[in-house]
Amino acid sequence: MINEARKVNTIGIIGGTGKEGKGLAYRWVKAGHRVIIGSRQWEKAQKAVETVTELLGSETELLEGMENEDAVKACEIAVITVPYAAHRPTLEALKDALEGKLLIDVVVPIVPPKVTKVQMPEAGSVAQEAQNILGENCHVVDAFQNISHERLLQDGEVDCDVLVCGKGKAAREVVLELVKDAGLKGWDAGPIENAVVVEGLTSVLIGLNIQHHVHAAGIRITGIPDQD
Amino acid sequence: MINEARKVNTIGIIGGTGKEGKGLAYRWVKAGHRVIIGSRQWEKAQKAVETVTELLGSETELLEGMENEDAVKACEIAVITVPYAAHRPTLEALKDALEGKLLIDVVVPIVPPKVTKVQMPEAGSVAQEAQNILGENCHVVDAFQNISHERLLQDGEVDCDVLVCGKGKAAREVVLELVKDAGLKGWDAGPIENAVVVEGLTSVLIGLNIQHHVHAAGIRITGIPDQD
Repeated sequence: MINEARKVNTIGIIGGTGKEGKGLAYRWVKAGHRVIIGSRQWEKAQKAVETVTELLGSETELLEGMENEDAVKACEIAVITVPYAAHRPTLEALKDALEGKLLIDVVVPIVPPKVTKVQMPEAGSVAQEAQNILGENCHVVDAFQNISHERLLQDGEVDCDVLVCGKGKAAREVVLELVKDAGLKGWDAGPIENAVVVEGLTSVLIGLNIQHHVHAAGIRITGIPDQD
Repeated sequence: MINEARKVNTIGIIGGTGKEGKGLAYRWVKAGHRVIIGSRQWEKAQKAVETVTELLGSETELLEGMENEDAVKACEIAVITVPYAAHRPTLEALKDALEGKLLIDVVVPIVPPKVTKVQMPEAGSVAQEAQNILGENCHVVDAFQNISHERLLQDGEVDCDVLVCGKGKAAREVVLELVKDAGLKGWDAGPIENAVVVEGLTSVLIGLNIQHHVHAAGIRITGIPDQD
């Protein structure tokens, strides 16, 4: 089930005990990556590891749980999946550990109660906020904002593409590979200034979910022939 | 060819002599609406009418050309399809004529040379800029920003959905009907604050066009069963 014969990244998921974090961990471990689920509490990280292990159907050394800071220190690529309210304080606390790393930001700036209205942070976007906190030596890349998280915890195709945008084409290419490894179709959506589109689209999709009584409105890019 | 037996709107297209304007005029006249192509110069408007008439294959009283101000005065629903640089001055000049009307804003804030980077006007979006100029008594609604305009001048399906956002649900519903009449699939993308997503997506799609050597990257909304 788990593909052990490929280039392995060590991925640390900050606040990885929620559905997004566990879903991404599940898919990346299956693809052969080493994943560390991070949490503010070690115990919660272990519990998330148990859940994902159960889904995988077998124990694996590729999956571990740690406190957030240890997860970041041990990883090459960090991912942040915390509620928006925790975004800034979490990154400020982990700034030193994140120095020089690639950070995949999955956070959406959803501000209740107006969850269907695009409301960006003062920095312009969540990704830009992260980039401002972490400084130029870190590469922040947005991805997975528009995916219905339940779908990640199941096998099978997710009927939604992933727009990847952020600082540096090379960093975006690394993330596009990880999107593919998670079984999703990704697209290079350009520089970090485009994060407002990627993040804001989530509010549009939530609005469509509510209007149409569904749970997983998504998007697909059209007009580009398959080049695989 | 032209359906004359339906509710007819009179639609005035400000700066309607370009591809977008002519394409929308072509499709709406075919659906039975009365369309006035507006231009700064009466002669240019007549020339655009000739082109569209040729495409339609027969003369029709449903299609006329006028100067912009006359087009706006004669219409119930105005559409603006000018280059971004002309957006503000055009609306300032037509402010009185637009009083109390519904304005469909098709303009995208593309600022050369960085056409693949999202760059919004100070107001936050083109739609918000229009709303600020025209005041609360006008309803500004974004639509058609992500459609490849050549496709509008041909028959057949356009493989791209239309995100409709702007001031007031009732206004958005009127525009969604017009999207349908143009042969396209539209979605209510929410309040005017969401215009940043709809307009910014165009830069993302231009980036994908360049990367993949295509001309008409678009989007489709997924995860919502067809309710027609």
